[in-house]
Amino acid sequence: MKSPIAVVVLAAGAGTRMKSALPKVLHPLANRPMVRHVLANAEALKPARIVGVIAPGAKDVAAAFAPYPTVVQTKPLGTGHAAKAALGALKGHAGPVLVVFGDAPLVTTETLKRLVTACAREKAAVGVLGFVAEDPTPYGRLVVQRGVLERIVESKDANEIERAITFSNSGVMCLDGRLIASLLGAIGNDNVKREFYLTDVVGIARAAGHKAIAVEGPETEFQGINSRAELAMAERALQQRLRAAAMTAGVTMTDPDTVWLSADTRIANDVTIGPNVRFGPGVTVASDVQIKAFCDIEGARIGRGAIIGPFARIRPGSEVADDVHIGNFVELKATKMGKGAKANHLAYLGDADIGARSNIGAGTIAVNYDGFGKWRTVVADDVFVGSNSSLVAPVKVGKGANVTAGSVVTEDVPADAVAFGRARQVTKKGRAGPLRAKLKARAAAAKRTKKK
Amino acid sequence: MKSPIAVVVLAAGAGTRMKSALPKVLHPLANRPMVRHVLANAEALKPARIVGVIAPGAKDVAAAFAPYPTVVQTKPLGTGHAAKAALGALKGHAGPVLVVFGDAPLVTTETLKRLVTACAREKAAVGVLGFVAEDPTPYGRLVVQRGVLERIVESKDANEIERAITFSNSGVMCLDGRLIASLLGAIGNDNVKREFYLTDVVGIARAAGHKAIAVEGPETEFQGINSRAELAMAERALQQRLRAAAMTAGVTMTDPDTVWLSADTRIANDVTIGPNVRFGPGVTVASDVQIKAFCDIEGARIGRGAIIGPFARIRPGSEVADDVHIGNFVELKATKMGKGAKANHLAYLGDADIGARSNIGAGTIAVNYDGFGKWRTVVADDVFVGSNSSLVAPVKVGKGANVTAGSVVTEDVPADAVAFGRARQVTKKGRAGPLRAKLKARAAAAKRTKKK
Amino acid sequence: MKSPIAVVVLAAGAGTRMKSALPKVLHPLANRPMVRHVLANAEALKPARIVGVIAPGAKDVAAAFAPYPTVVQTKPLGTGHAAKAALGALKGHAGPVLVVFGDAPLVTTETLKRLVTACAREKAAVGVLGFVAEDPTPYGRLVVQRGVLERIVESKDANEIERAITFSNSGVMCLDGRLIASLLGAIGNDNVKREFYLTDVVGIARAAGHKAIAVEGPETEFQGINSRAELAMAERALQQRLRAAAMTAGVTMTDPDTVWLSADTRIANDVTIGPNVRFGPGVTVASDVQIKAFCDIEGARIGRGAIIGPFARIRPGSEVADDVHIGNFVELKATKMGKGAKANHLAYLGDADIGARSNIGAGTIAVNYDGFGKWRTVVADDVFVGSNSSLVAPVKVGKGANVTAGSVVTEDVPADAVAFGRARQVTKKGRAGPLRAKLKARAAAAKRTKKK
Repeated sequence: MKSPIAVVVLAAGAGTRMKSALPKVLHPLANRPMVRHVLANAEALKPARIVGVIAPGAKDVAAAFAPYPTVVQTKPLGTGHAAKAALGALKGHAGPVLVVFGDAPLVTTETLKRLVTACAREKAAVGVLGFVAEDPTPYGRLVVQRGVLERIVESKDANEIERAITFSNSGVMCLDGRLIASLLGAIGNDNVKREFYLTDVVGIARAAGHKAIAVEGPETEFQGINSRAELAMAERALQQRLRAAAMTAGVTMTDPDTVWLSADTRIANDVTIGPNVRFGPGVTVASDVQIKAFCDIEGARIGRGAIIGPFARIRPGSEVADDVHIGNFVELKATKMGKGAKANHLAYLGDADIGARSNIGAGTIAVNYDGFGKWRTVVADDVFVGSNSSLVAPVKVGKGANVTAGSVVTEDVPADAVAFGRARQVTKKGRAGPLRAKLKARAAAAKRTKKK
Repeated sequence: MKSPIAVVVLAAGAGTRMKSALPKVLHPLANRPMVRHVLANAEALKPARIVGVIAPGAKDVAAAFAPYPTVVQTKPLGTGHAAKAALGALKGHAGPVLVVFGDAPLVTTETLKRLVTACAREKAAVGVLGFVAEDPTPYGRLVVQRGVLERIVESKDANEIERAITFSNSGVMCLDGRLIASLLGAIGNDNVKREFYLTDVVGIARAAGHKAIAVEGPETEFQGINSRAELAMAERALQQRLRAAAMTAGVTMTDPDTVWLSADTRIANDVTIGPNVRFGPGVTVASDVQIKAFCDIEGARIGRGAIIGPFARIRPGSEVADDVHIGNFVELKATKMGKGAKANHLAYLGDADIGARSNIGAGTIAVNYDGFGKWRTVVADDVFVGSNSSLVAPVKVGKGANVTAGSVVTEDVPADAVAFGRARQVTKKGRAGPLRAKLKARAAAAKRTKKK
Repeated sequence: MKSPIAVVVLAAGAGTRMKSALPKVLHPLANRPMVRHVLANAEALKPARIVGVIAPGAKDVAAAFAPYPTVVQTKPLGTGHAAKAALGALKGHAGPVLVVFGDAPLVTTETLKRLVTACAREKAAVGVLGFVAEDPTPYGRLVVQRGVLERIVESKDANEIERAITFSNSGVMCLDGRLIASLLGAIGNDNVKREFYLTDVVGIARAAGHKAIAVEGPETEFQGINSRAELAMAERALQQRLRAAAMTAGVTMTDPDTVWLSADTRIANDVTIGPNVRFGPGVTVASDVQIKAFCDIEGARIGRGAIIGPFARIRPGSEVADDVHIGNFVELKATKMGKGAKANHLAYLGDADIGARSNIGAGTIAVNYDGFGKWRTVVADDVFVGSNSSLVAPVKVGKGANVTAGSVVTEDVPADAVAFGRARQVTKKGRAGPLRAKLKARAAAAKRTKKK
């Protein structure tokens, strides 16, 4: 690489309009902190360096940047001031420097690449990403003449002709690494707010005889996030990208608008997904899987041909082998289901290993918690666990064993044994009438008491 | 208040296109009868009087107006006739009279206020709310010259020039209380349908030398509701308002379009809400609460830091204290969960008091109903209730007690006691094979019988 | 009928962009294979014949056409070649022949009828359905002069004037049955792809002195389906039609966009449906039913006045009588609920008959499967089944009987009897402290072991 790129991510903004204790750039999108999207898009450029600029004391933000270094902008004195804070971390870097924003996660790698490429081709000291705004009112305008970016005019300072310009400033810039220190150093704060504006580098570069250019990108990529409503809009935009990519790869979604994916969700072809399915982080789904309506899946692998849901919840640490069925109102947590195993109705399997072809009856609970520790339930292959059973962990049920319905299993069951953990039925004839009379009287008495 | 307002709500329409036994204005929006939205928006004006005009026999509608009085429009002879029915109830009222519609619940207080203010300022006898219609075809047009509303032309009666007008009649009016009786009294029914049209008052007022004006409001507020499809559109519009307000106040919604709020839902800041959460009436949520996907919450308070769902249902009369966890496939009904208590999996807690830090195991049922009465279960602090237990109310479990998994508890458990209500496990070795053979034979026999 | 219609459905396309092992025309929309929608719309014309053209070896597609015959297009040589394959099956047919596409299921019967009617009126040998495209770039243009369709120009062959035409070719045609053999026979393959294009018949007919016409339909009907994303768009369009029809018939939907209907769903008036309800195939709902949020219903009848959900799942073969209540986290499978019966909380009723007014307690399981056969549970009228009970089928519970909470019922319960199938409670005072100590120690030991 002749001219490796450096990326500076500005992430020191206060985000007061979020009305949140959580720093703005850590608010999640597609279950990943906003700034990690910015980093992922930057990483795809294979840059030589990435450096974050953060606010004083923002340890959580620094942690989100790891393994990349961060520098602290000591006071909130504008974007130019923030970029300057990164100069130390850029020492010795002579290639292009991209300045991007931690709260603008929709800018794609492809758009960044086009900016860098154009700057190299045009030998520009400064390149700015712009967009044609449907309503440019809130944005600075890019004044371009004969391929050269002459200046950026703030909306409030624009004259009538400039106000008619729709080509708007995204804020994203590419600066020549050999010039960046002198360009940023020359930014002044002679303005009402006494702040240092990064946009000033355009004029500074041109005054020094360097070239500035503007490169157009799609408006949809440049939405910054300053409020919960904008966060929701960005979430929607990201979800649309993730859904479209999945469908292109051969996934059927009955109603794509109601499938929520995580940035790292991986789904193979010929998977069908019903309405209202949420994928938390860390999910992989093999081909020919049916995921029915109303499922919530997180941190799990789903094997080929499995049938999931409706109303299934699969939690982190679960591995669902091929041809497994997980039915309604069933929860798996850190549970392995062997090939062809079934848990079709109202069950909680926590910290369990269920063997191949084993059938878990309706209402079964793998009792993994005793108030102090969590324990595993191990069910071997070809076991039949009757409905409404409780398997009190740690406990093992051997191959081919049968647990009768309604049993509480507290001791290991050997292979091929039958376990009973329930009382024999006793039927008392003619007693329902008197029982009804008694219960009725009790209810009536309670009613009288209430009235008093 | 010099000039207190009166509000007349026209709610006597038949609503046949709703195809419903329920009167149109009682169809709910955001879980509140349509007409109650109209009343709430009127109430915010602090009017001296509110009076409803209803159809004969519409007792339910009258009840929805309470505590405000209603008068009956004896026959459906048009809006002018309906407004006249309210004259008796307006006796002695000299201030402005707003005439609004029970089936147009989206008109905001702010827009009504602007109409009243403009009428006062302009000393107008009649003020009409209008809107610039994207497609004015179905509406009467407001003919305005030099700030004066000259007349309202019905669409079918409009000439070519008038048809080009997009400023359209919403129907909402403000009339001078001193003139209202004479204005309404002068409306005739010399038309094809032999009906009395309220819009005629514009011409009547002007003929008598009074001034009429039109005030513009946003088109979105003036959608009337005549069909289920329009009801759904109004619901969406109201939901958008409620969601936007919540986000502005610092609530994160992964997908706002799938959060359904009630008119009275109150949610604090830094609450995160996953996709597909429905709030029925009467819900208050404190800050730092996480409500995961697929929850249904109604008539409940949720304390600070609680984690709810996914797939949780909380029903009226429930109080969930700080730091409580309510997990998947759990239902609470009229149940209090003490601080830090947990019910994480497949449980029904009906009419129960659960103490602080107590843990309710998976599959636990608080058995509140015996076929005749409902009874309470009282679980003290620091209790551990094992999985698949049944607590048969009325019953009490004392502080620090332990109910073993699978127990049926029918008698009170003292503090620090351990309760067993289950059979001991009996394991019969080698019996699963013969059992399988027996069950297989039974199934085969049944199959043979079916074929015959 | 003087001139009965024949319909040729072209369904031999490969559909590679679907990335699917399933033939494209079998991908479902509203829970019905795509091509069945095309057939249903054709059937409403009461045609004399319907014939499908399929790819070699496409047995599943042929089965989807049943009872209509199919012919095989031996090689994929274009739409003209495909239509020719149907000629044998059209022998002796002198009426109009509609040529439609198996992957364009949104074309309505009404639009097809308009095409046929116009062709008859105009005595046209060829009629083509066209639409005014918002963006005509991808489509062939219909060149119409004085009511006559002169030719169809492919987008890439269009000159500047033709490119400005927005009237676009849908592909759907109506051909005169007496001329179809000679028209199709005259199509050549003198083009780059060496394919036979059906569109050539326009020129061929006109050269032979016959008339060709174009009839306009709405663009929305002509979306073909070539990818999963287009499949999702078509699904949405169909759902919108189904939802609108239901609302017009008097159904209230809180949020229609989150109600998924099947092509055959039937819902009576004054039914209210909350957000997020999925109707699989074969559902009928009587009037005055409330279906709350988050329900999944398939293959079931719901009687008048029933209350369903939230979070209910009703599976095929279920019959829910009037006034039944099915509550949260309840699954019915092939189960009949008698009038006024209730199963309100966390229950699985599989292969069960529940009598009128019977109450099924929370957590009850009708244990229908023993690993080999499925068996029925029969509960008579007025039975009270206590919570967390297991009814092990085959088993019968007689009228008025009472099954106590937590019971495992393995033997029939006579009418009016009380059945106990649970252990008596044993309470051990002061034992919780030592138990806690023991469990705490066990957890600590396990933690130490892990660290090693």
